[in-house]
Amino acid sequence: MDVKVLAFDIFGTTVDWWSGVSGQVDRIAAARGVELGGGTFADDWRRRYPPSMNLVRRGELPWQNLDALHRRSLDEMLHERGVGPAFDEAARVELVRTWHRLPAWPDSVAGLTRLAGRYVLAAVSNGGFALLTNLIKAAKLPFDCVISAELARHYKPDPEVYLTVAELLDAAPGEVLMVAAHVWDLAGARDAGLRTAFVERPLEKGPHGRADRAGDFDADLTASDFAELATKLGL
Amino acid sequence: MDVKVLAFDIFGTTVDWWSGVSGQVDRIAAARGVELGGGTFADDWRRRYPPSMNLVRRGELPWQNLDALHRRSLDEMLHERGVGPAFDEAARVELVRTWHRLPAWPDSVAGLTRLAGRYVLAAVSNGGFALLTNLIKAAKLPFDCVISAELARHYKPDPEVYLTVAELLDAAPGEVLMVAAHVWDLAGARDAGLRTAFVERPLEKGPHGRADRAGDFDADLTASDFAELATKLGL
Repeated sequence: MDVKVLAFDIFGTTVDWWSGVSGQVDRIAAARGVELGGGTFADDWRRRYPPSMNLVRRGELPWQNLDALHRRSLDEMLHERGVGPAFDEAARVELVRTWHRLPAWPDSVAGLTRLAGRYVLAAVSNGGFALLTNLIKAAKLPFDCVISAELARHYKPDPEVYLTVAELLDAAPGEVLMVAAHVWDLAGARDAGLRTAFVERPLEKGPHGRADRAGDFDADLTASDFAELATKLGL
Repeated sequence: MDVKVLAFDIFGTTVDWWSGVSGQVDRIAAARGVELGGGTFADDWRRRYPPSMNLVRRGELPWQNLDALHRRSLDEMLHERGVGPAFDEAARVELVRTWHRLPAWPDSVAGLTRLAGRYVLAAVSNGGFALLTNLIKAAKLPFDCVISAELARHYKPDPEVYLTVAELLDAAPGEVLMVAAHVWDLAGARDAGLRTAFVERPLEKGPHGRADRAGDFDADLTASDFAELATKLGL
């Protein structure tokens, strides 16, 4: 593979959104005397993400970034649980911003640091530009640039996102390797002409969720973490 | 000032384009047995940048990034000097890419590292996205994100560029401090509602050029380098 750019998915692939969101939700709710059940709440929040995003992808909602979609789902969830009045505007903003500060998987920083010696590393996610910038800074992830779906005003797996990465970084699509733990993301990347690397993150949907597995997709490369990815790329 | 984001201009403010371009031009030309006079060549190349960019700003040329404008000026300059045949396509690409690899000023990395402890640091330049990403990576500048004028498809000092920084980073314009060594850039930032910091770089146009001086603009803050900027911001 003649690859110049590694494009990393973030939620689930590079950071552990489930642990990060569930823990922060529990803390924020407890401070208001409410029990939300962080793990279940995080599951539900994430489950609403593809359909909300698809409203934008199909043109049924005008473009809005992931913070806005998260807020929309959050408002629904608090209402359904009958706890709306316990969460004022400031609390809801704080809840939406839990997605801006998530723990990296234990191998992420060291693996990215090795890979950065040879490749341009881009964070390529459906998260908003501010979200991704905040997240990467807090977790000290050594990315060279942030390429949010917000820059293309399309969500993955629309080809516009993957092609924006290639265009902005002056690379051919085939010189970009998309690294993700999700079949739908890698399938979109391959359809747009990118190379693909599947990294298995069995816990990315929490201890009871069903994460995608390597056997689900015929990627150009498969690895169990970023350390193995670096080794397989000869670093 | 209630500032969250520091937006740094790059050419002249954060890196020494004059030394970097002139040295590389001399080396590339010498390898082809031609004497171009790197310092004079860099001066001339830079002098053509505002008028070429203004063709785009006025709509007389369709949008194109700085690499394309640099290439346009380069082709003119080589032709005017009668040395066109000595520089084939590969040599011209190599010359344009001298702008992708420039030395940081001696205080840049340490000053930015101090400032990154409190602020989001964005590289905000008329350079293209790939150019800026390559430049920042090679010079190990600790920026949190790259916001090229290419993302706004406008060149500074058009307000769209400054407002894109605020929008992408979820900040009010007044929460963004533009840091630059050029009056025209800071004037544009202030007109868009940003705060301004002037950093004097007396050698940014080489030993014989006339750089802007602090007295030329009434900025919110003035500093002689990034160390003093950090100190004046209380870091």
